[in-house]
Amino acid sequence: MTTLRFEDFPPGRFGSFGPHHVTREDILAFAGEFDPQPMHLDEEAAAKSMLRGLSGSGWHLCSLMMRMLCDGFIARTASLGSPGVNEVRWLAPLRPGDDLTLEVDVIEARVSKSRPETGIVMFKSTARNAAGEALCEMTSPIIVGRREGAEGAR
Amino acid sequence: MTTLRFEDFPPGRFGSFGPHHVTREDILAFAGEFDPQPMHLDEEAAAKSMLRGLSGSGWHLCSLMMRMLCDGFIARTASLGSPGVNEVRWLAPLRPGDDLTLEVDVIEARVSKSRPETGIVMFKSTARNAAGEALCEMTSPIIVGRREGAEGAR
Repeated sequence: MTTLRFEDFPPGRFGSFGPHHVTREDILAFAGEFDPQPMHLDEEAAAKSMLRGLSGSGWHLCSLMMRMLCDGFIARTASLGSPGVNEVRWLAPLRPGDDLTLEVDVIEARVSKSRPETGIVMFKSTARNAAGEALCEMTSPIIVGRREGAEGAR
Repeated sequence: MTTLRFEDFPPGRFGSFGPHHVTREDILAFAGEFDPQPMHLDEEAAAKSMLRGLSGSGWHLCSLMMRMLCDGFIARTASLGSPGVNEVRWLAPLRPGDDLTLEVDVIEARVSKSRPETGIVMFKSTARNAAGEALCEMTSPIIVGRREGAEGAR
């Protein structure tokens, strides 16, 4: 399988990935370990919450998006990691039984000044449920190796 | 136990929480489920990676910070949830055996215009290892209920 490099990520739509199915058990397991708030763990409390029913942790949704990015292309990309996340917007609740899809756009791609053998690719990823409703938008950079022999690369 | 409300979060240092111990098994389990990149799963590949040794997923670190926030104060706060995360900076790798502490500052607190019975508290949270090295900084808002009878609250 071809390894994707910096040059394979021009600005524009990169691809769509999924579906990834999320069960009630997945939601309860993540929340029990990392985000034990009643709205993520307790049906009765969740029904009274702002989100009107059991919802997955926002961090669970981000982690699922990371998994979909890995399965979608990062596993075959010359990725060197990421310095962080620029913005996350949780737009609608993750629900038990959701089938998630992920749209990925490249919003910027530039060669690193400090390490010209790499580039920084800024991705915008949008997770949607089966009804097409956007649940989360995330903007995050990934450091990606350039092709051998690329101009300025060592 | 007193429930913390908007008025209990004036700007400034809110508190320090932890320690929270992270094992190699924790790191491998999270990465296997959500971020199966070699640098988080495979000692040999990790030794050759930019981070020079097995490191936890950045999303694992964020999720652990959420757990420390819950245990620290969110479980006893009139929290209504969060619209997202403004910024995450992964500064140094999470390592097997790390004992994490979390410093939490309130950087802004304002009453909601659209729902004046609530306020938005902007937190900056910094996770450190036992050596005091900052591993992650996160800036994120939480919607918190105001005290009953607060001016303008319904």
